[in-house]
Amino acid sequence: MARVAVVMAGSGVNDGTEIHEATLALLHLDELGAEVQCFAPDKPQMHVIDHVKGRPAEGETRNSMVEAARIARGEIRPLNELRADDFDAVVFPGGFGAAKNLSTFAVDGPDCEVDSEAKRAILEFHGAGKVVTALCIAPAVLAKTFGGAGIKVKLTIGHDAATAGALEKMGAEHVEADVDQAVVDQQHRVVTTPAYMLGPTIKHVSKGIRAAMEKTVELAKQVGATA
Amino acid sequence: MARVAVVMAGSGVNDGTEIHEATLALLHLDELGAEVQCFAPDKPQMHVIDHVKGRPAEGETRNSMVEAARIARGEIRPLNELRADDFDAVVFPGGFGAAKNLSTFAVDGPDCEVDSEAKRAILEFHGAGKVVTALCIAPAVLAKTFGGAGIKVKLTIGHDAATAGALEKMGAEHVEADVDQAVVDQQHRVVTTPAYMLGPTIKHVSKGIRAAMEKTVELAKQVGATA
Repeated sequence: MARVAVVMAGSGVNDGTEIHEATLALLHLDELGAEVQCFAPDKPQMHVIDHVKGRPAEGETRNSMVEAARIARGEIRPLNELRADDFDAVVFPGGFGAAKNLSTFAVDGPDCEVDSEAKRAILEFHGAGKVVTALCIAPAVLAKTFGGAGIKVKLTIGHDAATAGALEKMGAEHVEADVDQAVVDQQHRVVTTPAYMLGPTIKHVSKGIRAAMEKTVELAKQVGATA
Repeated sequence: MARVAVVMAGSGVNDGTEIHEATLALLHLDELGAEVQCFAPDKPQMHVIDHVKGRPAEGETRNSMVEAARIARGEIRPLNELRADDFDAVVFPGGFGAAKNLSTFAVDGPDCEVDSEAKRAILEFHGAGKVVTALCIAPAVLAKTFGGAGIKVKLTIGHDAATAGALEKMGAEHVEADVDQAVVDQQHRVVTTPAYMLGPTIKHVSKGIRAAMEKTVELAKQVGATA
């Protein structure tokens, strides 16, 4: 059985983890027989967005883990407790949480910083020969982390030239992909899919996340077999 | 094409709409070719629960529609704008939002009150010969609404005897069902499935919601054909 950690950061596309992407990752991992544990950084979100108005809710503060616990139905642990030893793969759903809470990519672009625990976890999984998977805009976190460590990984955020250029500037190789496709870097065991970077609707996003979770579990089982 | 309204109330199992159930309803409706619009009551939630601690977050207030907009990716309208004329079916996902924000069932049991706009919408859809669907604990809202109008509907919340008894006390006929089954009241065009009232995990819940959405769309097309 593949053991998979899912790392979230808030709950909601504009200031946290994209809810559909996280839920679909959990669905497809469960259907594929994986054992899943959710994690999130126990720290304040960058800000809170009113998802009706699409504007910051002034004066409100929320915690990335407490909000992500809504998606995880309470079954969540702090990111600093995530150890590569305990899992075969780690999955990062998208949403602005990846670009605001797990990194500062939404504000700083290629000059962003990655949350120290997210960076540690990614390099720990990679160093142990395990699988690192990212959906939607979360590949930006991988690009910065791997690029900063001098590791060039192949990944996708779909077709957007500006974002793809930013990922390349951080040291990644961007590969164009459609919403129903997963891009696999076999050498580095990195799996990515565009999800809502392309959409347009949940049924399309679900196909790509299914493909990414199939590849994740397939690679995770190879890890298990050789460990 | 079936036109379906999805009515939420918050975002998160303990104080709002159950996120997996709502997301899976949106997924399966999209896969079945339905056109979907989300709604929620534009009013404060009963309270806010910290989903890590499982306890009320003292001093916090949130709005049922603003939070549900996180699940709807911003595409949501106030419940008082929902008209049965514009749709063939209405779907209520579960979570405590149904029992705390759309009704007071969590506090008052069979003596609960139903949100006036939820009650109006349910009776408007039923009166127009349209489909009313509810997941998980949301059948409690239907039991109270229909029971109060002297209409005995057949529905399920799974196997829990105490909850089933409460629904019967409000005037409904409870039918036991497993998590992968949908119960259909053909006469009143009411569809229900136990979802996380049984679980245990998202893949099981997804099967039942798939069954319920198939029945909803099938009945909704009959509405469209005879309208």
